[in-house]
Amino acid sequence: MKAVVLEKHGDIGSLRVVERPIPKPGPNEVLVRVTASPINPSDLAFLEGRYGFNKPAPVVPGIEGSGTVVAAGSGLMGRYLLGKRVACVSSANGDGLWAEYLLTTASSAYPLDDAVELEQGAMSLANPLSALAFMEIARQDGHKTIVNTAAASALGQMLERLAQSEGILVINVVRRPEQAELLKQLGAQVVLDSSNTDFDAQLKEACHRHQARLAFDAVAGKMTLQLLESLPRNSKVTVYGGLSMQPSEVWASQFIFEGKSVDGFWLTTWIPKKNFLQSLLFWQKAQKLMNSSLKTHIRARYPLQEAQKAVMNYQQQMTGGKVLLTTGE
Amino acid sequence: MKAVVLEKHGDIGSLRVVERPIPKPGPNEVLVRVTASPINPSDLAFLEGRYGFNKPAPVVPGIEGSGTVVAAGSGLMGRYLLGKRVACVSSANGDGLWAEYLLTTASSAYPLDDAVELEQGAMSLANPLSALAFMEIARQDGHKTIVNTAAASALGQMLERLAQSEGILVINVVRRPEQAELLKQLGAQVVLDSSNTDFDAQLKEACHRHQARLAFDAVAGKMTLQLLESLPRNSKVTVYGGLSMQPSEVWASQFIFEGKSVDGFWLTTWIPKKNFLQSLLFWQKAQKLMNSSLKTHIRARYPLQEAQKAVMNYQQQMTGGKVLLTTGE
Repeated sequence: MKAVVLEKHGDIGSLRVVERPIPKPGPNEVLVRVTASPINPSDLAFLEGRYGFNKPAPVVPGIEGSGTVVAAGSGLMGRYLLGKRVACVSSANGDGLWAEYLLTTASSAYPLDDAVELEQGAMSLANPLSALAFMEIARQDGHKTIVNTAAASALGQMLERLAQSEGILVINVVRRPEQAELLKQLGAQVVLDSSNTDFDAQLKEACHRHQARLAFDAVAGKMTLQLLESLPRNSKVTVYGGLSMQPSEVWASQFIFEGKSVDGFWLTTWIPKKNFLQSLLFWQKAQKLMNSSLKTHIRARYPLQEAQKAVMNYQQQMTGGKVLLTTGE
Repeated sequence: MKAVVLEKHGDIGSLRVVERPIPKPGPNEVLVRVTASPINPSDLAFLEGRYGFNKPAPVVPGIEGSGTVVAAGSGLMGRYLLGKRVACVSSANGDGLWAEYLLTTASSAYPLDDAVELEQGAMSLANPLSALAFMEIARQDGHKTIVNTAAASALGQMLERLAQSEGILVINVVRRPEQAELLKQLGAQVVLDSSNTDFDAQLKEACHRHQARLAFDAVAGKMTLQLLESLPRNSKVTVYGGLSMQPSEVWASQFIFEGKSVDGFWLTTWIPKKNFLQSLLFWQKAQKLMNSSLKTHIRARYPLQEAQKAVMNYQQQMTGGKVLLTTGE
């Protein structure tokens, strides 16, 4: 089979396509004939060696994707999945989805609804489930308003649409006028552009006026501090990305006297807090919305051979549609 | 009456003693003839304009202290307190305790147990109640080990003694060998000196070996980052002081992938979360322990006239006993 291999973390130039034997599933494993796999911010972090899993190079990247289960090792779950169209994630130790085949654990493959095409299905997990998770977190704590940064991202657009349907207001923070325009076209009521000179004042005003006490932050760096400074007392910033690749300077007084806090969100550790039934219902809800609120716009498709070009394309423009790697299957 | 007045925040040289009329209590207020008031880190923060309350200068400093209620305005609580020996805090808007008399709200004065002398009673609130609060927070979340920084402080010593009596292990972080010695003499099992060259490794080793997932941090700045780096996954740093006066650099990956979080503790906002009965029981527990676990060593006493000298003495050496301002009453 063909597989994209990263020879060295931090060096995108070391991505190459190699021939490898098709792996064989062991107990509780499935072999997936891969159709498509997107490039997400988490994949860029993985390529740079800054992701939550540290897999030694050489390694096949690709955290999520879709395909068809063509073989299964022993175990009930694998046999159930055999022949099914699935969304899947790479296992914590194994290779990823930028290949013609993926070997993963049966519990890392999720059957797609009939109405969900394989290309959309390749983007069923990271963004749709995170957007749904944010809504669930906001509802649980009774928030009527939330802030989101890097809000023109695929996840940001999903969050805006979900929030509209649930009557929650999103203060969307973007960094370019065309991104603001995109969100306004989705019907977003509040969009702030961090490239504006009076962004700090606008953010503070909006957070206080709408009593926003929960911010989801994909940017980190200075943005986390700006959020802490702008939110009213007793607010929380939940960091879910580090797009700025910078540390955040935070001050003791914000935590002590203003009752603010910072925590993090990672889908990989959030999902397992649900029991089996809760997870199933959560997945079904996501699948039902895949052709509406949770639909992702695809900007470009590349074959595995052009993985390097695909990554560079995505790095240059991380909003305005997803870049997919496809196997032609 | 004599009162110490700070003419300008950030300028200790502007502390002077002035003559002022004795204030008269209004409804729900009491007038306290002050006996003593300590200099705490929070007072230094107040003098520098970095505290949670911003009172415009000129202002009488002094956040906590003790005395006798000599007059009360209308209201049940004030009449109950009349003639009683009390610990008290300055109200959010009024002048503080570095004076011969304090006017404060009746709900800011707490009757002292007969066994508690007025000088000890002057230090009944900030440190003893914070130490008890930390123990309550640790117990609630099932922690068997906690970390504390600036651990040779009055609060740190109280925390170590309380923890011993409740079977909770404290990883004490100090910054000088003599402070480590002091804590070991109290029976502390784990004391780490941040001036050691291999402190980082020692802290990490201790946090992992003892599975510490909760750290109370009075230092902030680099210390908060060191704690985040040293604690195992799913840990929390609760900042309660900013002795370093520096911001902390924190990284998105610590929040996202390691499940860590940072929040803050301020006694002023923590106490009101209790209902009346809970507060009463909490105060009674503190008073019972004032001559044992919660006893404070007094290093020096100064009259109001020497407030400036007293502050400088305390600034130069913040551990090794409290510095009290006394009125001779």
